[in-house]
Amino acid sequence: MLPTPFSSPASSLNSNAITVLAPATVANVVCGFDVLGFALREPNDKMQLRLTAEPGVRIINDDAFGLPTEPTRNVAGAALLAMLRAAPEVAGVEVRIRKRIRPGSGIGSSAASAAGAVVGLNHLLGGRFSRAELVEFAMYGEEVASGVRHADNIAPAIYGGVTLIRATTPTPDVVPLDAPPLFVTVVHPQIEVKTADARRILRQQVPLRDAIRQWGNVGALVAGLLQHDYALIGRSLEDVIIEPVRSILIPGFQQVKEGSRAAGALGGGISGSGPSLFMLSQTEATAQAVAEVMRTTYVQLGLAHFIYQTTINPIGCQILPD
Amino acid sequence: MLPTPFSSPASSLNSNAITVLAPATVANVVCGFDVLGFALREPNDKMQLRLTAEPGVRIINDDAFGLPTEPTRNVAGAALLAMLRAAPEVAGVEVRIRKRIRPGSGIGSSAASAAGAVVGLNHLLGGRFSRAELVEFAMYGEEVASGVRHADNIAPAIYGGVTLIRATTPTPDVVPLDAPPLFVTVVHPQIEVKTADARRILRQQVPLRDAIRQWGNVGALVAGLLQHDYALIGRSLEDVIIEPVRSILIPGFQQVKEGSRAAGALGGGISGSGPSLFMLSQTEATAQAVAEVMRTTYVQLGLAHFIYQTTINPIGCQILPD
Repeated sequence: MLPTPFSSPASSLNSNAITVLAPATVANVVCGFDVLGFALREPNDKMQLRLTAEPGVRIINDDAFGLPTEPTRNVAGAALLAMLRAAPEVAGVEVRIRKRIRPGSGIGSSAASAAGAVVGLNHLLGGRFSRAELVEFAMYGEEVASGVRHADNIAPAIYGGVTLIRATTPTPDVVPLDAPPLFVTVVHPQIEVKTADARRILRQQVPLRDAIRQWGNVGALVAGLLQHDYALIGRSLEDVIIEPVRSILIPGFQQVKEGSRAAGALGGGISGSGPSLFMLSQTEATAQAVAEVMRTTYVQLGLAHFIYQTTINPIGCQILPD
Repeated sequence: MLPTPFSSPASSLNSNAITVLAPATVANVVCGFDVLGFALREPNDKMQLRLTAEPGVRIINDDAFGLPTEPTRNVAGAALLAMLRAAPEVAGVEVRIRKRIRPGSGIGSSAASAAGAVVGLNHLLGGRFSRAELVEFAMYGEEVASGVRHADNIAPAIYGGVTLIRATTPTPDVVPLDAPPLFVTVVHPQIEVKTADARRILRQQVPLRDAIRQWGNVGALVAGLLQHDYALIGRSLEDVIIEPVRSILIPGFQQVKEGSRAAGALGGGISGSGPSLFMLSQTEATAQAVAEVMRTTYVQLGLAHFIYQTTINPIGCQILPD
């Protein structure tokens, strides 16, 4: 038997229940593999959480994606279980998830579930955990999704804006970066690129000279963001290590990239491990022109696709008012 | 026959002559191998330049280091020859160099000569070349010194402050970084580490996971500098790729590093390819305590050494008033 939805009048009065919007995120940001990411205003997942007397975590899917509901196999579940271990006096939590970020899209679908779950539960617990601690809990969710406890989607989903993960060990060191206004265009072509596969094809050794070029670009991208220098942001959106390998998995990559630059985009590339591609623009008009480039490319290739034209989400997961 | 020194009353009235102070620089800055560097207030080289009717470049050493005076084999000479090729109407230039930055110290002795030469000649030519162009000319000098046209000492010597080299090809892309006040303590132990040797021992392939850690630190160091976040600067001064290999060439490295951190330094490491070590501190008192750690370490090791306690030089090469 399904419980009453939390959005019903009865449960919305219940201070033990909360609704969270958990945003999609773009990880890597071209040169910043595993360290850079930013949150999007759209799309997002809608999650409703409530504390329960019944111990443990209960997952209820309110969508058609058929994700696992067993807590240890569900990204929100694994994140919540980690958090409950740190709050042993809390009995249980129930979470109802309406995913609007398609699993496998490469825009942080799993991170949204994990981040939204821990931000929501933290709110129900009076905000006792820091954002850095929430990132740690949510990383257990990412481990379920991809086998790797990475934080480059989790951190922007929780902090909002653009974030840099300086390091994940011994604990995640998240550096929020005060970026200028940026318009983001994302295309999600309907092909499957599994994160685990996209990781497997990477070379585990890279030429030192390429690594130097990469950290020059990472440093310059951080400087461009903090100094609000759009031209420098554009020049720094260059990836000599990951993109040459992964882009071959994504039909239309070169057309989208070159066409978007020609249309005035600052630059962009693969979102996370793909298949989504993102482009950054300084103006909304350019972002629209980029959307047109994306649409034309995938119509010509005969590939179904979704396009999101949005901006950077400065706050991350959002607790909705009752 | 030596010409009259430019500091004589007669030549100081000559608008065709100029004196330049060219600063020492610290390259790499721990995590930023080949991309980060900063200029020091002390030590510096004193260089006097004048335009000559005699074609070509004439080098006069006004010190006891016995560096080559043949222009193609002298770093200042090679840089000036490159610049003269871009200014064909200029006949010749004479440069008198009093080096006070010891060759082989690892604090940018060759870069100072190259940078001071091109900044000086540019001043004599009415400042027609941009700083980015001067970096390109000066890189020919670095090529003479180490066989590599790197810019991580050249750029801060010319721009001052802290600089990031995003990339050197197709042309050097120098990003000046507005850093907070920092005290710098440098120790130059009297051992020889040739730049070419220090490059040769580096592995040409690095593990991807180390490269990721490195560019996380580079991005975070840039953020720490621009946000004037001293704690973040300190956490980011970590090098998992170069330091573990090169530090074994430098006796006392671990004692200096650990002792300096214990004394309150933000962090530091090898300056350029060594043998000099540098430490950054937030206060002058800490920088003094660090100097004491350095002194004690090398006295105990029985190694002659020079110590410089200074700050970051915000202007780079300085044209002295007549």
